[in-house]
Amino acid sequence: MIEIGIIGANGYTGGELIRLLDKHPQAEVTIATSRKLAGQPIYKVHPHLRNIDLEFKKVEPEDMEADLVFTATPHGASMNIVPKLVEKGIKVIDLSGDYRFCDLDVYEKWYGLKQEHPLDAVYGLPEIYREEIKKANLVANPGCFPTGAILASLPLVSENLVDKVIIDAKTGVSGAGIKPNETTMYTNVSDNVIPYLVTTHRHGPEIQEKLAKFGDVGVSFTPHLVPVIRGILSTVHTFPIKDVTSKYVKDLYDNFYAEEPFVNVLDVDEIPRLSAVRGSNFCHIGGFQQDENGRLVVISSIDNMVKGASGQAIHNMNIMYGFRESESLDNLGLHP
Amino acid sequence: MIEIGIIGANGYTGGELIRLLDKHPQAEVTIATSRKLAGQPIYKVHPHLRNIDLEFKKVEPEDMEADLVFTATPHGASMNIVPKLVEKGIKVIDLSGDYRFCDLDVYEKWYGLKQEHPLDAVYGLPEIYREEIKKANLVANPGCFPTGAILASLPLVSENLVDKVIIDAKTGVSGAGIKPNETTMYTNVSDNVIPYLVTTHRHGPEIQEKLAKFGDVGVSFTPHLVPVIRGILSTVHTFPIKDVTSKYVKDLYDNFYAEEPFVNVLDVDEIPRLSAVRGSNFCHIGGFQQDENGRLVVISSIDNMVKGASGQAIHNMNIMYGFRESESLDNLGLHP
Amino acid sequence: MIEIGIIGANGYTGGELIRLLDKHPQAEVTIATSRKLAGQPIYKVHPHLRNIDLEFKKVEPEDMEADLVFTATPHGASMNIVPKLVEKGIKVIDLSGDYRFCDLDVYEKWYGLKQEHPLDAVYGLPEIYREEIKKANLVANPGCFPTGAILASLPLVSENLVDKVIIDAKTGVSGAGIKPNETTMYTNVSDNVIPYLVTTHRHGPEIQEKLAKFGDVGVSFTPHLVPVIRGILSTVHTFPIKDVTSKYVKDLYDNFYAEEPFVNVLDVDEIPRLSAVRGSNFCHIGGFQQDENGRLVVISSIDNMVKGASGQAIHNMNIMYGFRESESLDNLGLHP
Amino acid sequence: MIEIGIIGANGYTGGELIRLLDKHPQAEVTIATSRKLAGQPIYKVHPHLRNIDLEFKKVEPEDMEADLVFTATPHGASMNIVPKLVEKGIKVIDLSGDYRFCDLDVYEKWYGLKQEHPLDAVYGLPEIYREEIKKANLVANPGCFPTGAILASLPLVSENLVDKVIIDAKTGVSGAGIKPNETTMYTNVSDNVIPYLVTTHRHGPEIQEKLAKFGDVGVSFTPHLVPVIRGILSTVHTFPIKDVTSKYVKDLYDNFYAEEPFVNVLDVDEIPRLSAVRGSNFCHIGGFQQDENGRLVVISSIDNMVKGASGQAIHNMNIMYGFRESESLDNLGLHP
Repeated sequence: MIEIGIIGANGYTGGELIRLLDKHPQAEVTIATSRKLAGQPIYKVHPHLRNIDLEFKKVEPEDMEADLVFTATPHGASMNIVPKLVEKGIKVIDLSGDYRFCDLDVYEKWYGLKQEHPLDAVYGLPEIYREEIKKANLVANPGCFPTGAILASLPLVSENLVDKVIIDAKTGVSGAGIKPNETTMYTNVSDNVIPYLVTTHRHGPEIQEKLAKFGDVGVSFTPHLVPVIRGILSTVHTFPIKDVTSKYVKDLYDNFYAEEPFVNVLDVDEIPRLSAVRGSNFCHIGGFQQDENGRLVVISSIDNMVKGASGQAIHNMNIMYGFRESESLDNLGLHP
Repeated sequence: MIEIGIIGANGYTGGELIRLLDKHPQAEVTIATSRKLAGQPIYKVHPHLRNIDLEFKKVEPEDMEADLVFTATPHGASMNIVPKLVEKGIKVIDLSGDYRFCDLDVYEKWYGLKQEHPLDAVYGLPEIYREEIKKANLVANPGCFPTGAILASLPLVSENLVDKVIIDAKTGVSGAGIKPNETTMYTNVSDNVIPYLVTTHRHGPEIQEKLAKFGDVGVSFTPHLVPVIRGILSTVHTFPIKDVTSKYVKDLYDNFYAEEPFVNVLDVDEIPRLSAVRGSNFCHIGGFQQDENGRLVVISSIDNMVKGASGQAIHNMNIMYGFRESESLDNLGLHP
Repeated sequence: MIEIGIIGANGYTGGELIRLLDKHPQAEVTIATSRKLAGQPIYKVHPHLRNIDLEFKKVEPEDMEADLVFTATPHGASMNIVPKLVEKGIKVIDLSGDYRFCDLDVYEKWYGLKQEHPLDAVYGLPEIYREEIKKANLVANPGCFPTGAILASLPLVSENLVDKVIIDAKTGVSGAGIKPNETTMYTNVSDNVIPYLVTTHRHGPEIQEKLAKFGDVGVSFTPHLVPVIRGILSTVHTFPIKDVTSKYVKDLYDNFYAEEPFVNVLDVDEIPRLSAVRGSNFCHIGGFQQDENGRLVVISSIDNMVKGASGQAIHNMNIMYGFRESESLDNLGLHP
Repeated sequence: MIEIGIIGANGYTGGELIRLLDKHPQAEVTIATSRKLAGQPIYKVHPHLRNIDLEFKKVEPEDMEADLVFTATPHGASMNIVPKLVEKGIKVIDLSGDYRFCDLDVYEKWYGLKQEHPLDAVYGLPEIYREEIKKANLVANPGCFPTGAILASLPLVSENLVDKVIIDAKTGVSGAGIKPNETTMYTNVSDNVIPYLVTTHRHGPEIQEKLAKFGDVGVSFTPHLVPVIRGILSTVHTFPIKDVTSKYVKDLYDNFYAEEPFVNVLDVDEIPRLSAVRGSNFCHIGGFQQDENGRLVVISSIDNMVKGASGQAIHNMNIMYGFRESESLDNLGLHP
């Protein structure tokens, strides 16, 4: 049984980590920190975790005692915490953007922050970096949009079938975090669709950097806020540089993900939808249709809080410790 | 390992039974019937169950081979199926209204059906009838509204503190089942609240019959359809016949449900909400406030598909077989 | 053409006043104030008002030039603004709670504020106080819950048919205003029902005071937040002190509201729902069923932003100036 | 005052026609047909139209007496009704797809129907065909997706700036009509995003045919069902064939739509969203950003029931009769 610490456990990804780890037979959350809520039972902010006996604590990084720590802290905060944990010999999975980029200039440009404490980290997308994750002490957990977008695009890019991909993403509101603001008010989101940062979302360059390692591709990315609590649906529009059939593309994806426990390549008469993966760690991929103008459509759906954040983080933990990969992650989606 | 059959597995409660039983170490769904969809994989209608390798079959009740069968069949259909199963020595948990009533006249009046094949059945609310369920061969699983309403009212009634209860219930749409109709269209339900059958819903007499066994009480019941997928929130308004304090009422509930694995009595600064129990088998009860006119408020929240249907059915199964009561039912709610 | 000022025009009720007055042939909004947004076009915060050529201004009450001012200001703020306007000879319709109560002790108890500048005001529910409104210089516009609750209860109370009413109200989120907070986040409200202030909402005493003028009645009130943008559905549960029939009750309401332009008493086979009045100034009233225990149900639905706030305020203005009562208010609801 | 007939008035577009025409000073709905509901007041199916005194009638096309008829009938039905009306000298605005296509082969291929009764019709997009509409006896009202997609793309195509456009559209559920089916159930749509007919929706060829008259362009179209009652947001992704700036593109749109009463070109710091046009006949267009890969984004939002159907139909009527173009159509959107 390993001991787990969660820094920033009062947010949504913190809550999901606790929810999902509750059933893990080899890992136990022993410290859940929150500066603001120290001393309160976690269910005061996570009402669904009422049966879990855990209190928020205020613990400085220097004083953390744990085998592995999830840093569910904001961009810019992680870089001041992670190095102190690593130094103590604690394994770290960071859910912020601070350690995701190989090219620090790209990070600094898009996050408007100086990376003061760079460290070697593995990009925690198990479908790509499983072997590296096994040996990692620091994993940078991918962004929610990049998870869905990369999984939907990677087989095409790896095969050098495309040189441009347009990712039109639709995201649930939980991706914006637990702190209220005007954008995430019910009255603004409900019965509405709101595009935002249409060419300037910082998950665009993250997708670009990761895909570019597998092929020469230009990534165009536009997110939309939709009236959904959880989930990201990524519609990839692309023009393959040679003729393909639906069957060819589906076979390509079937083979590419044949061994993956959490990627489901759908049949041609199915279509990814958010409800099929709600609350689960699965990624559904489907579509594979090409129209008369040569445009190919591939679509992925994930739960942004699970496969797009906390579930994937636990998947990384399972790989790092040699646990069964789907341990505590094999619950099915909640539909309807 | 016991073998489980589900008759009518193409509906929402059927889907929930399969979802929840997927992790059960002592029970396996071996037959899932659907007349209409026989031969198709279950994920064609339950997209979240894509990883479960099960096909719908057309099997007549006479030919069912199983240790226990859940009949997730409509009112009126169950009474023609259940006796045939019982006769074969199969244990049955029926999710319809056909075997819920002690007084058949009440059943026949409110369901507009003649009960052609009456049988002895135990009303499957474990918090009341645990001992009887242990020995039962046929359990009539409670209605969704009665589950939430009875749990919220029972301690007051048992203590003879009230002679009338008004239950103002707000229900999610999944309670109406998987078959489309005008009422359940998105355009009708979204951004709307619709009261219905304001004094004539047949779950009213079910609540009345069950509570009346514990005290002399008149039940008034009004349901409202709200833009929610899952969940029932029951607000009980009542005028206690003697003075009570919030603390007295909360203590009463604390004691009443002290040993119950799935009933959580909330603190006075908490309030039941649907999201805290979404997807889970828990029932939250809170409120306990009295106003200047002597009106007391007690509120319960459940997931109508889990505690209000399939989860409770599995709870009954666990009790019948002496399994751990919360086996495969202890997943936490999905909030947000 | 009268000149209209709106103080606090950056909130939801301010936006609704501008939207509804846009078509008024005898009234024009000439000043819309917002301290924070002065200098900006109103459509920066009210995106639906893009075609209205109006800028927020910062104007002190002392400097307001207008025939009539709507004070869409928070409780506690209005009492420091309204007297200055009245002193200048400007007619005022105040949308806050500051001038709604006859009994200042009740106001001060429930609002936790001292009313420093009491003034004579007419309670602006046209269905009760039309004659007084005609002559008023200061109208206190009713609260949103009281509007729906009083209209649903008043005929019964006036007829001395009931001595207690229980009002179980379901409200949309816009009632909480434009300022973001945890309660009104999409992730908290969506797919959820949340009761709040179950016996202590300050609209309870407002309903109590107004109804008590017409009969000896005790009011019990409980609000619930539902995933709806606009609208309040009020379910009134009550036990008439003598036997009544549905027809008797419906006739009572038909007669009571026969001349009212904005109250629709529904047929017995209809039921109030929010979508039927969405965006409109109508109030639908229906139900009128009694159950076997003697409990009678009457239900009203309104749009909290229109009949529950800005529409009713304009109705009051029309009455004060002798304009056609439904001028600029007779648009129909938006369903679906 | 002209007399208006509506054939198929029991559907959503029929309800919208009646709602919007209610205030028209020069047109009155005198006949609203419904085969199924003949004899019933329209408010039994359109609860928001309770104050309109109109009954459904069963009238054969041959017996219609009206100056103008809106045929709100399904594809395939219109072609059997419209010619009979035209023959009687009645002006017709058809809301189906039957008369939208110049190339009947395209129609027949995508609708799977033979056009048995072809007639000359004007495509009723006023922003393109205003002059032709003035003289038309038969107007084919555009599809909902084509309205938003064409308005967002046309300036670029007319300027020969693009040779391919990808339209990623997000639609509310009302577009699927009033008849219940599995797709439009609340439980399927809520908290979900569902792509459908990802390369084969028949509105694709409609957009293609209309845009191709203005430039050599290939249209790729993919619709998504989102949890919204009304509205279509169309995100156009395209790679201009020469370098452009945001300012250049915005100026192009500003000039192109300078005289249009219902098209609002937004500022660069605004973004189209559904709520800003909810219930109104406006189309908002914005975006105009280009990313590092040369991809340009232009976005439009409309209410599919108003600008995308019934409002546009009335706009066409106003043009045909020389009425003020925005008569009865200038109500503002309903936000929040």
